[in-house]
Amino acid sequence: MSGRLSIVGLGPGAAALQTPAAAAALSAATDLIGYGPYVERVAARADQVRHVSDNREELERARHALRLAEAGRHVAVVSGGDAGVFGMASAVFEAIEHGEAAWRLIEPEVIPGVSAMFAAAARLGAPLGADFCALSLSDNLKPWAVIERRLRAAASAGFVIALYNPLSRARPWQLGAAFELLRAELPPTTPVMFATAVSRPDERIDIAPLEHADPARADMRTIVLIGTATTRCLEGCGRMFVYSPRSAA
Amino acid sequence: MSGRLSIVGLGPGAAALQTPAAAAALSAATDLIGYGPYVERVAARADQVRHVSDNREELERARHALRLAEAGRHVAVVSGGDAGVFGMASAVFEAIEHGEAAWRLIEPEVIPGVSAMFAAAARLGAPLGADFCALSLSDNLKPWAVIERRLRAAASAGFVIALYNPLSRARPWQLGAAFELLRAELPPTTPVMFATAVSRPDERIDIAPLEHADPARADMRTIVLIGTATTRCLEGCGRMFVYSPRSAA
Repeated sequence: MSGRLSIVGLGPGAAALQTPAAAAALSAATDLIGYGPYVERVAARADQVRHVSDNREELERARHALRLAEAGRHVAVVSGGDAGVFGMASAVFEAIEHGEAAWRLIEPEVIPGVSAMFAAAARLGAPLGADFCALSLSDNLKPWAVIERRLRAAASAGFVIALYNPLSRARPWQLGAAFELLRAELPPTTPVMFATAVSRPDERIDIAPLEHADPARADMRTIVLIGTATTRCLEGCGRMFVYSPRSAA
Repeated sequence: MSGRLSIVGLGPGAAALQTPAAAAALSAATDLIGYGPYVERVAARADQVRHVSDNREELERARHALRLAEAGRHVAVVSGGDAGVFGMASAVFEAIEHGEAAWRLIEPEVIPGVSAMFAAAARLGAPLGADFCALSLSDNLKPWAVIERRLRAAASAGFVIALYNPLSRARPWQLGAAFELLRAELPPTTPVMFATAVSRPDERIDIAPLEHADPARADMRTIVLIGTATTRCLEGCGRMFVYSPRSAA
């Protein structure tokens, strides 16, 4: 077998935030595979084959990539941000564990990237400057009760929270329910940050206190960050910065 | 005031994992400031001034950077990994909030980077592929009781845990105490991963079950990742991969 499989984090969007390692892996690939908007971000050459699939088909996409690598192709599976954070890396290893014996001979290479939450945090100041957690609000793969338990545990223990997949057309109510739950755990003035399409032309940043945080400010491309009781808002240069002090309350 | 202040995440070490945005900010700086080993990673030109300080002086280093920017210099404050994750970004905003009024006129730019924990995860497979948290084990800035509470909350709610600052000469016992506490919350076979100096020439990766995890495998350059009850070890290509499935148990 001479095939290869790279799982590549593209970063949040801007070319200046994509690593040289990612660029090299993309350039070495014969085949690019991923969710449409991510594959479209890659300036593929005419000799590279693009395989585009829908958002919720990660496991089948992973199997497709493994079959191509098994057949000798050099495959780059692409994810936005970092591929190991609610991206394709986990799906590929899951497909290997439960798939063909031959797939164990493929040694996947994971190329880390600048994650969406860190790009969002950088735009805002340093809201993730203290202990924090990252949590997917999608209940497609885990029960909503598990998500509620994790939100409550994180907020009450003083972790800053980064919410991935805050909502979609099929999951319209979850973000509002999360805010409702968090209002019972955190002060009403806790900063909630909506960071949409960070580093792309249509980037949008909103900040609101938890008591007034409106789920309608988020869409599928939004990372929502929720501070702690010690997270600070700071005015300067005609704008607002948010940071979480390194020390606990 | 014509000074500028950039807070730059250098990535985990390898040049291929440093973003073009970071390279551009470093190149535009008149002054580079940071903890010695990070400043040394930057190939500074003869016309750039290096300001090197000790590890535990973040706030004084931040004030020094702000004074230089106030005086018109173009300052790059450097951190390893991502500057917003237990790096210099939070210290700079803390210094602004409690410092000179003139510092509010400086608009700091934070350049995100590939964090050490994501570079570590990529080498291991996809151990952070589910909900996870990042926690500094240093009790220099927060009481040990807060750290214990966060460890317990994270493990019992099913978060993968990334430990920063696992130990140092001045803090030799904390990592062992953390393992002891986690053994009461997690199965004895839970994978514990030690990732040291990832992407650098002396990179070292160790994996052990929680019941046998030895704190002596970590040093100041180590990120320790602790799986959940659902995290999987997978043999293939003569090595071990670790991944956390996207679904909850």
